[in-house]
Amino acid sequence: MLELYHAEPIANSMKVLICLKEKQLDFVSHYVNLLRFEQHEPWFVEINPNGQVPVLMHDAKVITESTVINEYLDEVFPEIPLRPADPFLRAKMRIWSKFVDEYFCPALSMIGWHVLVRRIAQSLDAKQLEEMLAKIPLEEQRQKWATVAGDSFSEDQLAESRRKLGVSIARAEAILGECEWLAGPEYSLADLNSFSMIAGVDRLHPEILSGQVAPRTREWLEKMRERPAVQEAMEMPNKVAETLQAIAG
Amino acid sequence: MLELYHAEPIANSMKVLICLKEKQLDFVSHYVNLLRFEQHEPWFVEINPNGQVPVLMHDAKVITESTVINEYLDEVFPEIPLRPADPFLRAKMRIWSKFVDEYFCPALSMIGWHVLVRRIAQSLDAKQLEEMLAKIPLEEQRQKWATVAGDSFSEDQLAESRRKLGVSIARAEAILGECEWLAGPEYSLADLNSFSMIAGVDRLHPEILSGQVAPRTREWLEKMRERPAVQEAMEMPNKVAETLQAIAG
Repeated sequence: MLELYHAEPIANSMKVLICLKEKQLDFVSHYVNLLRFEQHEPWFVEINPNGQVPVLMHDAKVITESTVINEYLDEVFPEIPLRPADPFLRAKMRIWSKFVDEYFCPALSMIGWHVLVRRIAQSLDAKQLEEMLAKIPLEEQRQKWATVAGDSFSEDQLAESRRKLGVSIARAEAILGECEWLAGPEYSLADLNSFSMIAGVDRLHPEILSGQVAPRTREWLEKMRERPAVQEAMEMPNKVAETLQAIAG
Repeated sequence: MLELYHAEPIANSMKVLICLKEKQLDFVSHYVNLLRFEQHEPWFVEINPNGQVPVLMHDAKVITESTVINEYLDEVFPEIPLRPADPFLRAKMRIWSKFVDEYFCPALSMIGWHVLVRRIAQSLDAKQLEEMLAKIPLEEQRQKWATVAGDSFSEDQLAESRRKLGVSIARAEAILGECEWLAGPEYSLADLNSFSMIAGVDRLHPEILSGQVAPRTREWLEKMRERPAVQEAMEMPNKVAETLQAIAG
């Protein structure tokens, strides 16, 4: 049996949701409300000591890290393959996915935290904030929450992240000038691993993804949005608006 | 034909050198002297536009990123396998290697730059520095060189990196309390991918790897050092001392 602990269909949760849908795998969905800090609750930290989603449970086995989960799913359920058979193209798939994880996603994440997570953190009073911070297992996560609860990231830091988004889209644009998908002629994990990130740029900084600046990446994004698996993943639970409204009173 | 562009047997170059030796693969070695900025020369940037080592050339195919190169080698030359056959253990191998790349290695790298690369950067006069910086393709690398040429990293930044080295070693120690190697009962890429990082902690901050604090990781390190492939990799060219001496005049 497959079970997925995930948040709304954005960021890293979305990567695994699309993969499961593309591979037409049945799974039990467990929605974890990050804005209610459910990922730091003892029951969840017992599953993933890092207190982060997504987490895949396959029978009794727990697998973390969305990029690794997707390769695992493709290895265990090879019926609808999502990795190129050619090792060189597979290396390209991994190089791109690694770039998304190490460079593109952290830059987008900083801006997302500044725009969205800050509203939650700043809605807490001092005691609530202290209690929340005390439960966070990873020191780096605690630092991020403390940052957005306070003065948030500096304009210099945000500008550097916006620059990195531009570099990321330029890199996608260059690849898509040479081949149809991000790891070559076939649709692969490289594409589905980056859908939520590129869609995130479109939402937060559409000027970086305009038809003038990045026509091929725009076209790729539209093509991705038309995929049934992506549409099904987008219909998964999303309590962000509801939670924000509840907090605003 | 396999060709490897690499620096001395430390850091990311060492990961691929050990992998090639473990798999008993013949390759043509091209030593790139990082302290002489050869990685930023046009001939090298033509091979890897990021201006970074190691780079594998397999016939006409160029593969970058040491972690990806090692999976590629294991896929193309499966005779001496270095990845667990079980997909769950393979996922563990990837989770650990990803942690090394994203968390452990950047922390160690900052300290290495502060201790070693700074001596090179500060030996340049203003004109030499400007010329050197102008050739660096990646903005992030340019920022690092400019930092160590100036006041270097702050004491707070270095302390945070030392803390992360402690977290990394504690994580290795916890894994090695449950199994013999870093991805389970078998030696794998998880181990050889982290040898140079853990050996680097032993060189730069031995107190973090003392027998009191991390007895299992110490034992693992000694076992790694005894492997013929690791010893052969350690005998590969290393011009660091020679270059530093030439610069000191």
